[in-house]
Amino acid sequence: MNRQELVNLIKQKKSFLCVGLDSDINKIPQHLLKEQDPVFAFNKAIIDATLPYTVAYKPNTAFYESDGIKGLTSLKKTMDYLHEKRNECFLIADAKRGDIGNTSKQYAKAFLSEEGDFNFDAITVAPYMGKDSVSPFFSYENKWVILLALTSNEGAADFQYFADKNDMKLFEKVLTTAGEWGTKENLMFVCGATKAEKFTEIRKFAPEHFLLVPGVGAQGGSLKEVCKYGLIDDCGLLVNSSRGIIFADSTENFAKVAGEKAKELQEEMASYLR
Amino acid sequence: MNRQELVNLIKQKKSFLCVGLDSDINKIPQHLLKEQDPVFAFNKAIIDATLPYTVAYKPNTAFYESDGIKGLTSLKKTMDYLHEKRNECFLIADAKRGDIGNTSKQYAKAFLSEEGDFNFDAITVAPYMGKDSVSPFFSYENKWVILLALTSNEGAADFQYFADKNDMKLFEKVLTTAGEWGTKENLMFVCGATKAEKFTEIRKFAPEHFLLVPGVGAQGGSLKEVCKYGLIDDCGLLVNSSRGIIFADSTENFAKVAGEKAKELQEEMASYLR
Repeated sequence: MNRQELVNLIKQKKSFLCVGLDSDINKIPQHLLKEQDPVFAFNKAIIDATLPYTVAYKPNTAFYESDGIKGLTSLKKTMDYLHEKRNECFLIADAKRGDIGNTSKQYAKAFLSEEGDFNFDAITVAPYMGKDSVSPFFSYENKWVILLALTSNEGAADFQYFADKNDMKLFEKVLTTAGEWGTKENLMFVCGATKAEKFTEIRKFAPEHFLLVPGVGAQGGSLKEVCKYGLIDDCGLLVNSSRGIIFADSTENFAKVAGEKAKELQEEMASYLR
Repeated sequence: MNRQELVNLIKQKKSFLCVGLDSDINKIPQHLLKEQDPVFAFNKAIIDATLPYTVAYKPNTAFYESDGIKGLTSLKKTMDYLHEKRNECFLIADAKRGDIGNTSKQYAKAFLSEEGDFNFDAITVAPYMGKDSVSPFFSYENKWVILLALTSNEGAADFQYFADKNDMKLFEKVLTTAGEWGTKENLMFVCGATKAEKFTEIRKFAPEHFLLVPGVGAQGGSLKEVCKYGLIDDCGLLVNSSRGIIFADSTENFAKVAGEKAKELQEEMASYLR
Protein backbone atom coordinates (compact mmCIF):
# COMPACT_ATOMS: atom_id res chain seq x y z
CA MET A 1 0.00 0.00 0.00
CA ASN A 2 1.51 3.36 -0.98
CA ARG A 3 1.22 6.65 0.91
CA GLN A 4 -1.64 8.02 -1.12
CA GLU A 5 -3.67 4.84 -0.59
CA LEU A 6 -2.98 4.98 3.13
CA VAL A 7 -4.00 8.64 3.29
CA ASN A 8 -7.18 7.86 1.34
CA LEU A 9 -8.00 5.14 3.85
CA ILE A 10 -7.48 7.59 6.72
CA LYS A 11 -9.78 10.13 5.06
CA GLN A 12 -12.41 7.53 4.29
CA LYS A 13 -12.52 6.08 7.81
CA LYS A 14 -11.76 9.41 9.53
CA SER A 15 -9.32 7.44 11.60
CA PHE A 16 -5.58 6.91 11.99
CA LEU A 17 -6.01 4.14 14.51
CA CYS A 18 -3.75 1.10 14.49
CA VAL A 19 -4.88 -1.87 16.55
CA GLY A 20 -2.04 -3.87 18.06
CA LEU A 21 -2.77 -7.59 17.94
CA ASP A 22 -0.59 -8.49 20.95
CA SER A 23 -2.78 -11.51 21.41
CA ASP A 24 -1.31 -13.15 24.50
CA ILE A 25 -3.03 -16.50 24.96
CA ASN A 26 -2.94 -15.98 28.73
CA LYS A 27 -4.98 -12.80 28.43
CA ILE A 28 -7.66 -13.71 25.89
CA PRO A 29 -11.14 -14.53 27.21
CA GLN A 30 -11.29 -17.96 28.85
CA HIS A 31 -14.25 -19.16 26.82
CA LEU A 32 -12.12 -19.02 23.64
CA LEU A 33 -9.75 -21.67 24.94
CA LYS A 34 -12.18 -24.35 23.79
CA GLU A 35 -11.71 -23.19 20.15
CA GLN A 36 -9.38 -25.16 17.91
CA ASP A 37 -7.17 -22.08 17.48
CA PRO A 38 -8.06 -19.69 20.33
CA VAL A 39 -5.66 -16.94 19.24
CA PHE A 40 -7.00 -16.87 15.70
CA ALA A 41 -10.59 -16.96 16.96
CA PHE A 42 -9.76 -14.00 19.19
CA ASN A 43 -8.06 -12.03 16.41
CA LYS A 44 -10.87 -12.70 13.94
CA ALA A 45 -13.50 -11.42 16.38
CA ILE A 46 -11.38 -8.35 17.22
CA ILE A 47 -10.84 -7.59 13.52
CA ASP A 48 -14.52 -7.94 12.67
CA ALA A 49 -15.47 -5.59 15.51
CA THR A 50 -12.81 -2.93 14.96
CA LEU A 51 -12.32 -2.80 11.18
CA PRO A 52 -14.75 0.10 10.56
CA TYR A 53 -12.74 2.30 12.94
CA THR A 54 -9.23 1.11 12.19
CA VAL A 55 -6.82 1.79 9.33
CA ALA A 56 -4.01 -0.55 10.43
CA TYR A 57 -3.42 -3.78 12.29
CA LYS A 58 -0.13 -4.50 13.97
CA PRO A 59 0.46 -8.05 15.20
CA ASN A 60 3.53 -8.09 17.43
CA THR A 61 5.46 -11.16 16.33
CA ALA A 62 6.67 -11.94 19.87
CA PHE A 63 3.18 -12.96 20.99
CA TYR A 64 3.03 -15.56 18.22
CA GLU A 65 6.64 -16.75 18.35
CA SER A 66 6.24 -17.41 22.08
CA ASP A 67 3.97 -20.32 21.19
CA GLY A 68 6.41 -21.63 18.56
CA ILE A 69 5.21 -23.01 15.26
CA LYS A 70 1.66 -23.26 16.62
CA GLY A 71 1.70 -19.55 17.38
CA LEU A 72 3.04 -18.65 13.96
CA THR A 73 0.30 -20.74 12.40
CA SER A 74 -2.22 -18.56 14.25
CA LEU A 75 -0.43 -15.51 12.83
CA LYS A 76 -0.59 -16.90 9.31
CA LYS A 77 -4.33 -17.58 9.66
CA THR A 78 -4.80 -14.04 10.98
CA MET A 79 -2.91 -12.60 8.01
CA ASP A 80 -4.88 -14.75 5.56
CA TYR A 81 -8.06 -13.37 7.10
CA LEU A 82 -6.76 -9.79 6.93
CA HIS A 83 -5.82 -10.26 3.28
CA GLU A 84 -9.49 -10.94 2.55
CA LYS A 85 -10.00 -7.29 3.62
CA ARG A 86 -6.98 -6.16 1.63
CA ASN A 87 -7.93 -2.60 0.73
CA GLU A 88 -9.44 -1.82 4.10
CA CYS A 89 -6.33 -1.89 6.26
CA PHE A 90 -2.57 -1.42 6.35
CA LEU A 91 -0.69 -4.39 7.83
CA ILE A 92 2.32 -3.90 10.07
CA ALA A 93 4.64 -6.64 11.35
CA ASP A 94 5.83 -5.34 14.69
CA ALA A 95 8.96 -7.46 14.54
CA LYS A 96 11.80 -5.03 15.38
CA ARG A 97 14.24 -6.93 13.18
CA GLY A 98 17.62 -5.81 11.83
CA ASP A 99 20.86 -7.64 11.03
CA ILE A 100 23.75 -7.50 8.54
CA GLY A 101 22.67 -6.97 4.92
CA ASN A 102 22.41 -10.54 3.67
CA THR A 103 20.43 -11.43 6.80
CA SER A 104 18.06 -8.45 6.77
CA LYS A 105 17.32 -9.44 3.19
CA GLN A 106 15.97 -12.74 4.58
CA TYR A 107 13.85 -10.94 7.18
CA ALA A 108 12.48 -8.67 4.46
CA LYS A 109 11.49 -11.73 2.46
CA ALA A 110 9.92 -13.33 5.54
CA PHE A 111 7.61 -10.43 6.27
CA LEU A 112 7.18 -8.38 3.08
CA SER A 113 7.27 -10.84 0.18
CA GLU A 114 3.95 -11.38 -1.56
CA GLU A 115 4.88 -15.04 -1.95
CA GLY A 116 5.62 -15.45 1.77
CA ASP A 117 3.38 -16.73 4.55
CA PHE A 118 2.59 -13.23 5.84
CA ASN A 119 2.85 -10.47 3.18
CA PHE A 120 2.78 -7.45 5.46
CA ASP A 121 2.79 -3.85 4.16
CA ALA A 122 5.39 -2.74 6.68
CA ILE A 123 7.81 -3.97 9.29
CA THR A 124 9.30 -2.30 12.36
CA VAL A 125 13.11 -2.31 12.23
CA ALA A 126 15.76 -1.57 14.90
CA PRO A 127 18.40 0.99 13.82
CA TYR A 128 21.45 -0.07 15.88
CA MET A 129 23.26 -1.89 13.05
CA GLY A 130 22.95 0.99 10.59
CA LYS A 131 22.25 1.48 6.92
CA ASP A 132 23.00 -1.95 5.44
CA SER A 133 20.78 -3.55 8.11
CA VAL A 134 17.84 -1.36 7.06
CA SER A 135 18.23 -0.96 3.28
CA PRO A 136 17.18 -4.51 2.27
CA PHE A 137 13.70 -3.82 3.60
CA PHE A 138 13.28 -1.06 0.99
CA SER A 139 13.50 -3.46 -1.93
CA TYR A 140 9.80 -4.39 -1.96
CA GLU A 141 7.61 -1.97 -3.90
CA ASN A 142 4.90 -0.14 -1.94
CA LYS A 143 6.18 -1.68 1.29
CA TRP A 144 7.48 0.24 4.28
CA VAL A 145 10.20 0.30 6.89
CA ILE A 146 9.07 1.64 10.26
CA LEU A 147 12.32 2.46 12.05
CA LEU A 148 12.59 2.75 15.83
CA ALA A 149 13.49 6.31 16.79
CA LEU A 150 12.08 7.22 20.21
CA THR A 151 10.32 4.35 21.94
CA SER A 152 7.67 4.55 24.63
CA ASN A 153 9.29 2.40 27.32
CA GLU A 154 11.33 3.39 30.35
CA GLY A 155 14.51 1.92 28.82
CA ALA A 156 14.29 4.49 25.99
CA ALA A 157 16.28 6.75 28.33
CA ASP A 158 19.25 4.36 28.45
CA PHE A 159 20.60 4.98 24.95
CA GLN A 160 18.13 6.98 22.85
CA TYR A 161 18.96 10.21 24.72
CA PHE A 162 22.73 9.60 24.55
CA ALA A 163 23.95 12.98 23.22
CA ASP A 164 26.94 14.18 21.24
CA LYS A 165 28.98 17.32 21.93
CA ASN A 166 26.37 19.47 20.17
CA ASP A 167 23.65 17.92 22.33
CA MET A 168 22.22 15.99 19.39
CA LYS A 169 20.58 12.91 20.86
CA LEU A 170 20.83 9.43 19.40
CA PHE A 171 17.15 9.32 18.41
CA GLU A 172 17.61 12.63 16.58
CA LYS A 173 20.70 11.24 14.88
CA VAL A 174 18.60 8.22 13.82
CA LEU A 175 15.86 10.48 12.43
CA THR A 176 18.28 12.61 10.40
CA THR A 177 20.61 9.85 9.21
CA ALA A 178 17.96 7.28 8.33
CA GLY A 179 15.82 9.99 6.77
CA GLU A 180 18.29 9.84 3.88
CA TRP A 181 18.04 6.06 3.45
CA GLY A 182 14.37 6.02 2.58
CA THR A 183 11.73 8.51 1.53
CA LYS A 184 8.44 9.69 2.97
CA GLU A 185 6.92 7.10 0.62
CA ASN A 186 8.61 4.07 2.18
CA LEU A 187 9.94 5.06 5.61
CA MET A 188 8.08 5.79 8.83
CA PHE A 189 9.46 6.20 12.35
CA VAL A 190 8.32 4.76 15.68
CA CYS A 191 7.92 7.66 18.11
CA GLY A 192 6.49 6.88 21.53
CA ALA A 193 3.54 8.87 22.82
CA THR A 194 4.55 8.98 26.46
CA LYS A 195 6.52 12.15 25.75
CA ALA A 196 4.06 14.09 23.58
CA GLU A 197 5.94 17.38 23.86
CA LYS A 198 8.84 15.62 22.09
CA PHE A 199 6.77 15.56 18.91
CA THR A 200 7.58 19.21 18.19
CA GLU A 201 11.24 18.27 18.19
CA ILE A 202 10.62 15.07 16.21
CA ARG A 203 8.75 17.04 13.53
CA LYS A 204 11.82 19.28 13.13
CA PHE A 205 13.84 16.22 12.13
CA ALA A 206 11.09 14.34 10.30
CA PRO A 207 8.61 16.96 9.08
CA GLU A 208 6.99 14.83 6.38
CA HIS A 209 7.32 11.21 7.45
CA PHE A 210 4.50 9.17 8.86
CA LEU A 211 5.07 8.34 12.54
CA LEU A 212 3.85 5.16 14.20
CA VAL A 213 2.95 6.12 17.73
CA PRO A 214 2.68 3.45 20.42
CA GLY A 215 2.10 4.19 24.06
CA VAL A 216 -1.36 5.74 23.91
CA GLY A 217 -3.61 4.14 26.50
CA ALA A 218 -2.06 1.38 28.64
CA GLN A 219 1.36 3.04 28.45
CA GLY A 220 0.00 6.44 29.47
CA GLY A 221 0.23 8.69 26.39
CA SER A 222 -2.39 11.31 25.49
CA LEU A 223 -3.91 11.20 22.01
CA LYS A 224 -4.79 14.90 22.14
CA GLU A 225 -1.23 15.92 22.90
CA VAL A 226 0.20 13.65 20.22
CA CYS A 227 -2.11 15.17 17.62
CA LYS A 228 -1.41 18.72 18.77
CA TYR A 229 2.30 18.30 18.08
CA GLY A 230 2.44 15.49 15.54
CA LEU A 231 -0.33 15.90 12.92
CA ILE A 232 0.69 17.20 9.49
CA ASP A 233 -1.25 18.07 6.32
CA ASP A 234 -1.95 14.52 5.17
CA CYS A 235 -2.20 13.26 8.77
CA GLY A 236 1.25 11.63 9.03
CA LEU A 237 0.33 9.65 12.12
CA LEU A 238 -0.70 6.10 12.89
CA VAL A 239 -1.57 5.87 16.55
CA ASN A 240 -1.49 2.41 18.05
CA SER A 241 -3.54 0.99 20.87
CA SER A 242 -3.15 -2.64 21.86
CA ARG A 243 -4.19 -3.65 25.35
CA GLY A 244 -6.59 -0.71 25.74
CA ILE A 245 -8.73 -2.15 22.94
CA ILE A 246 -8.17 -5.87 22.65
CA PHE A 247 -8.20 -6.65 26.39
CA ALA A 248 -10.77 -4.01 27.41
CA ASP A 249 -13.17 -6.81 28.35
CA SER A 250 -12.59 -10.48 29.11
CA THR A 251 -16.13 -11.80 28.90
CA GLU A 252 -18.07 -13.14 25.92
CA ASN A 253 -18.65 -9.46 25.09
CA PHE A 254 -14.94 -8.81 24.47
CA ALA A 255 -15.26 -8.08 20.75
CA LYS A 256 -18.22 -5.73 21.18
CA VAL A 257 -16.33 -3.79 23.87
CA ALA A 258 -13.18 -3.72 21.72
CA GLY A 259 -15.26 -2.27 18.90
CA GLU A 260 -16.66 0.40 21.24
CA LYS A 261 -13.17 1.34 22.46
CA ALA A 262 -11.93 1.58 18.87
CA LYS A 263 -14.95 3.70 17.94
CA GLU A 264 -14.26 6.08 20.84
CA LEU A 265 -10.71 6.59 19.63
CA GLN A 266 -11.86 6.92 16.01
CA GLU A 267 -14.35 9.62 16.98
CA GLU A 268 -11.71 11.53 18.91
CA MET A 269 -9.35 11.17 15.92
CA ALA A 270 -12.04 12.42 13.53
CA SER A 271 -12.31 15.59 15.61
CA TYR A 272 -8.57 16.25 15.28
CA LEU A 273 -8.58 15.51 11.54
CA ARG A 274 -11.06 18.28 10.80
CA MET B 1 24.54 -24.21 30.20
CA ASN B 2 26.44 -22.14 32.76
CA ARG B 3 29.82 -20.46 32.31
CA GLN B 4 31.85 -23.24 33.95
CA GLU B 5 30.21 -25.86 31.73
CA LEU B 6 30.92 -23.76 28.65
CA VAL B 7 34.55 -23.28 29.69
CA ASN B 8 34.88 -27.02 30.33
CA LEU B 9 33.58 -27.70 26.84
CA ILE B 10 36.13 -25.26 25.38
CA LYS B 11 38.95 -26.99 27.29
CA GLN B 12 37.78 -30.44 26.29
CA LYS B 13 37.47 -29.65 22.57
CA LYS B 14 40.38 -27.16 22.56
CA SER B 15 38.06 -24.97 20.55
CA PHE B 16 35.97 -21.84 20.91
CA LEU B 17 34.44 -22.17 17.47
CA CYS B 18 30.80 -21.33 16.86
CA VAL B 19 29.31 -22.52 13.59
CA GLY B 20 26.67 -20.21 12.18
CA LEU B 21 23.82 -22.18 10.64
CA ASP B 22 22.78 -19.47 8.15
CA SER B 23 21.35 -22.22 6.01
CA ASP B 24 20.05 -20.32 3.00
CA ILE B 25 18.11 -22.79 0.86
CA ASN B 26 19.45 -21.04 -2.28
CA LYS B 27 23.03 -21.78 -1.25
CA ILE B 28 22.89 -25.38 -0.02
CA PRO B 29 24.13 -28.12 -2.37
CA GLN B 30 21.69 -28.79 -5.21
CA HIS B 31 21.56 -32.54 -4.62
CA LEU B 32 19.90 -31.94 -1.23
CA LEU B 33 16.87 -30.33 -2.82
CA LYS B 34 15.41 -33.78 -3.44
CA GLU B 35 15.29 -34.42 0.32
CA GLN B 36 11.97 -34.00 2.13
CA ASP B 37 13.45 -31.21 4.26
CA PRO B 38 16.60 -30.01 2.46
CA VAL B 39 17.56 -27.42 5.08
CA PHE B 40 17.35 -29.93 7.92
CA ALA B 41 19.26 -32.53 5.89
CA PHE B 42 21.95 -29.91 5.27
CA ASN B 43 22.15 -28.86 8.94
CA LYS B 44 22.28 -32.45 10.18
CA ALA B 45 25.19 -33.28 7.87
CA ILE B 46 27.02 -30.07 8.84
CA ILE B 47 26.49 -30.78 12.56
CA ASP B 48 27.70 -34.38 12.26
CA ALA B 49 30.84 -33.25 10.45
CA THR B 50 31.71 -30.27 12.63
CA LEU B 51 30.67 -31.29 16.15
CA PRO B 52 34.12 -32.58 17.24
CA TYR B 53 35.62 -29.15 16.50
CA THR B 54 32.79 -26.89 17.55
CA VAL B 55 31.53 -25.72 20.94
CA ALA B 56 28.53 -23.73 19.74
CA TYR B 57 25.95 -23.61 16.96
CA LYS B 58 24.22 -20.42 16.00
CA PRO B 59 21.24 -20.67 13.67
CA ASN B 60 20.33 -17.21 12.43
CA THR B 61 16.55 -17.08 12.68
CA ALA B 62 16.20 -14.94 9.53
CA PHE B 63 17.25 -17.83 7.28
CA TYR B 64 14.40 -19.95 8.68
CA GLU B 65 11.75 -17.24 8.97
CA SER B 66 12.30 -16.35 5.31
CA ASP B 67 10.66 -19.64 4.41
CA GLY B 68 7.77 -19.06 6.81
CA ILE B 69 6.33 -21.87 8.91
CA LYS B 70 8.11 -24.45 6.73
CA GLY B 71 11.44 -22.81 7.52
CA LEU B 72 10.74 -22.70 11.24
CA THR B 73 9.84 -26.38 11.13
CA SER B 74 13.33 -27.04 9.72
CA LEU B 75 14.75 -24.99 12.61
CA LYS B 76 12.77 -27.00 15.16
CA LYS B 77 14.01 -30.26 13.66
CA THR B 78 17.56 -28.91 13.76
CA MET B 79 17.18 -27.96 17.41
CA ASP B 80 15.66 -31.36 18.27
CA TYR B 81 18.69 -32.98 16.67
CA LEU B 82 21.11 -30.68 18.53
CA HIS B 83 19.36 -31.48 21.80
CA GLU B 84 20.31 -35.12 21.29
CA LYS B 85 23.90 -33.86 21.65
CA ARG B 86 22.96 -31.68 24.60
CA ASN B 87 26.20 -31.57 26.57
CA GLU B 88 28.41 -31.27 23.52
CA CYS B 89 27.42 -27.80 22.34
CA PHE B 90 26.10 -24.40 23.35
CA LEU B 91 23.06 -23.27 21.36
CA ILE B 92 22.64 -19.65 20.30
CA ALA B 93 19.54 -18.14 18.67
CA ASP B 94 20.92 -15.36 16.51
CA ALA B 95 17.63 -13.50 16.59
CA LYS B 96 18.58 -9.91 17.50
CA ARG B 97 15.29 -9.36 19.28
CA GLY B 98 14.32 -6.64 21.77
CA ASP B 99 11.06 -4.83 22.57
CA ILE B 100 9.22 -3.31 25.54
CA GLY B 101 9.28 -5.44 28.68
CA ASN B 102 6.07 -7.44 28.33
CA THR B 103 6.99 -8.19 24.72
CA SER B 104 10.62 -9.16 25.33
CA LYS B 105 9.23 -11.56 27.92
CA GLN B 106 7.42 -13.31 25.07
CA TYR B 107 10.57 -13.46 22.94
CA ALA B 108 12.47 -14.90 25.91
CA LYS B 109 9.82 -17.60 26.23
CA ALA B 110 9.96 -18.28 22.48
CA PHE B 111 13.69 -18.94 22.41
CA LEU B 112 14.84 -19.83 25.93
CA SER B 113 12.00 -21.76 27.56
CA GLU B 114 12.65 -25.47 28.09
CA GLU B 115 9.01 -26.11 27.22
CA GLY B 116 9.24 -24.17 23.95
CA ASP B 117 9.88 -25.43 20.43
CA PHE B 118 13.53 -24.38 20.46
CA ASN B 119 15.09 -24.22 23.97
CA PHE B 120 18.27 -22.31 23.11
CA ASP B 121 21.00 -21.56 25.67
CA ALA B 122 21.35 -17.97 24.52
CA ILE B 123 19.82 -15.31 22.31
CA THR B 124 21.31 -12.26 20.63
CA VAL B 125 19.50 -9.08 21.67
CA ALA B 126 19.54 -5.52 20.27
CA PRO B 127 20.22 -2.79 22.87
CA TYR B 128 18.42 0.22 21.39
CA MET B 129 15.33 0.02 23.63
CA GLY B 130 17.32 -0.19 26.86
CA LYS B 131 17.14 -2.06 30.14
CA ASP B 132 13.53 -3.20 30.29
CA SER B 133 13.85 -4.60 26.75
CA VAL B 134 16.82 -6.75 27.81
CA SER B 135 16.05 -7.77 31.39
CA PRO B 136 13.27 -10.29 30.65
CA PHE B 137 15.81 -12.49 28.88
CA PHE B 138 17.70 -12.90 32.17
CA SER B 139 14.85 -14.69 33.87
CA TYR B 140 15.76 -18.19 32.62
CA GLU B 141 18.37 -19.96 34.75
CA ASN B 142 21.66 -20.85 33.06
CA LYS B 143 20.56 -19.04 29.91
CA TRP B 144 22.31 -16.09 28.34
CA VAL B 145 21.75 -12.72 26.71
CA ILE B 146 24.25 -11.89 23.98
CA LEU B 147 23.87 -8.15 23.51
CA LEU B 148 24.93 -6.32 20.35
CA ALA B 149 27.76 -3.92 21.12
CA LEU B 150 30.04 -3.45 18.10
CA THR B 151 28.85 -5.31 15.01
CA SER B 152 30.94 -6.43 12.03
CA ASN B 153 29.01 -4.75 9.22
CA GLU B 154 29.63 -1.47 7.43
CA GLY B 155 26.54 0.11 9.00
CA ALA B 156 28.12 -0.29 12.45
CA ALA B 157 29.69 3.11 11.75
CA ASP B 158 26.32 4.85 11.45
CA PHE B 159 25.36 4.84 15.12
CA GLN B 160 27.68 2.62 17.16
CA TYR B 161 30.49 5.19 16.99
CA PHE B 162 28.19 8.11 17.84
CA ALA B 163 30.16 9.81 20.65
CA ASP B 164 29.31 12.01 23.60
CA LYS B 165 31.18 15.12 24.74
CA ASN B 166 33.80 12.97 26.49
CA ASP B 167 34.28 10.95 23.30
CA MET B 168 32.58 7.90 24.78
CA LYS B 169 31.08 6.01 21.86
CA LEU B 170 27.64 4.43 21.84
CA PHE B 171 29.03 0.86 21.77
CA GLU B 172 31.17 1.70 24.82
CA LYS B 173 28.13 3.16 26.53
CA VAL B 174 26.27 -0.09 25.77
CA LEU B 175 29.12 -2.18 27.21
CA THR B 176 29.32 -0.17 30.44
CA THR B 177 25.59 0.39 30.97
CA ALA B 178 24.42 -3.12 30.11
CA GLY B 179 27.34 -4.60 32.04
CA GLU B 180 25.34 -3.67 35.13
CA TRP B 181 22.13 -5.38 33.97
CA GLY B 182 23.61 -8.86 33.83
CA THR B 183 26.69 -10.63 35.08
CA LYS B 184 29.57 -12.44 33.44
CA GLU B 185 27.51 -15.58 34.13
CA ASN B 186 24.52 -14.60 31.97
CA LEU B 187 25.60 -11.77 29.67
CA MET B 188 27.88 -11.83 26.63
CA PHE B 189 28.45 -9.15 24.02
CA VAL B 190 28.59 -9.32 20.24
CA CYS B 191 31.84 -7.68 19.12
CA GLY B 192 32.71 -7.87 15.42
CA ALA B 193 36.10 -9.16 14.35
CA THR B 194 36.63 -6.84 11.42
CA LYS B 195 38.24 -4.32 13.77
CA ALA B 196 40.49 -6.58 15.86
CA GLU B 197 42.46 -3.72 17.39
CA LYS B 198 39.17 -2.57 18.94
CA PHE B 199 39.29 -5.59 21.24
CA THR B 200 41.85 -3.88 23.52
CA GLU B 201 39.35 -1.11 24.03
CA ILE B 202 36.42 -3.53 24.37
CA ARG B 203 38.28 -5.47 27.05
CA LYS B 204 38.67 -2.23 29.06
CA PHE B 205 34.89 -1.98 29.25
CA ALA B 206 34.13 -5.72 29.45
CA PRO B 207 37.21 -7.39 30.93
CA GLU B 208 35.47 -10.55 32.10
CA HIS B 209 32.51 -11.13 29.80
CA PHE B 210 32.42 -13.68 27.05
CA LEU B 211 32.37 -12.06 23.61
CA LEU B 212 30.66 -13.56 20.59
CA VAL B 213 32.78 -12.60 17.60
CA PRO B 214 31.29 -12.70 14.11
CA GLY B 215 33.11 -11.52 11.03
CA VAL B 216 36.01 -13.99 10.94
CA GLY B 217 36.35 -15.46 7.46
CA ALA B 218 33.80 -14.28 4.88
CA GLN B 219 33.57 -10.86 6.53
CA GLY B 220 37.37 -10.43 6.62
CA GLY B 221 38.39 -10.60 10.30
CA SER B 222 41.60 -12.28 11.49
CA LEU B 223 41.36 -14.99 14.15
CA LYS B 224 44.92 -14.39 15.29
CA GLU B 225 44.33 -10.69 15.88
CA VAL B 226 41.06 -11.32 17.69
CA CYS B 227 42.78 -13.78 20.04
CA LYS B 228 45.75 -11.49 20.60
CA TYR B 229 43.51 -8.74 21.95
CA GLY B 230 40.42 -10.62 23.10
CA LEU B 231 41.40 -13.84 24.91
CA ILE B 232 41.18 -13.86 28.72
CA ASP B 233 42.04 -16.45 31.39
CA ASP B 234 39.07 -18.74 30.84
CA CYS B 235 39.00 -17.98 27.10
CA GLY B 236 36.09 -15.52 27.07
CA LEU B 237 35.58 -15.79 23.33
CA LEU B 238 33.23 -17.60 21.00
CA VAL B 239 34.36 -16.99 17.43
CA ASN B 240 31.75 -17.55 14.78
CA SER B 241 32.19 -18.69 11.22
CA SER B 242 29.18 -19.24 9.00
CA ARG B 243 29.66 -19.12 5.24
CA GLY B 244 33.39 -19.96 5.49
CA ILE B 245 32.47 -23.38 6.86
CA ILE B 246 28.97 -24.33 5.80
CA PHE B 247 29.25 -23.16 2.19
CA ALA B 248 32.94 -24.03 1.67
CA ASP B 249 31.92 -26.69 -0.84
CA SER B 250 28.72 -27.17 -2.81
CA THR B 251 29.19 -30.75 -4.02
CA GLU B 252 28.23 -34.04 -2.39
CA ASN B 253 31.40 -33.56 -0.34
CA PHE B 254 30.08 -30.42 1.38
CA ALA B 255 29.92 -31.91 4.87
CA LYS B 256 33.40 -33.41 4.69
CA VAL B 257 34.84 -30.07 3.54
CA ALA B 258 32.90 -28.21 6.25
CA GLY B 259 34.40 -30.59 8.81
CA GLU B 260 37.89 -29.92 7.45
CA LYS B 261 37.38 -26.14 7.58
CA ALA B 262 36.11 -26.42 11.16
CA LYS B 263 39.09 -28.61 12.08
CA GLU B 264 41.51 -26.04 10.63
CA LEU B 265 39.98 -23.31 12.76
CA GLN B 266 39.91 -25.59 15.82
CA GLU B 267 43.60 -26.39 15.41
CA GLU B 268 44.47 -22.72 15.10
CA MET B 269 42.32 -22.00 18.18
CA ALA B 270 44.06 -24.79 20.14
CA SER B 271 47.40 -23.10 19.47
CA TYR B 272 46.14 -19.82 20.95
CA LEU B 273 44.58 -21.55 23.97
CA ARG B 274 47.93 -23.01 25.11
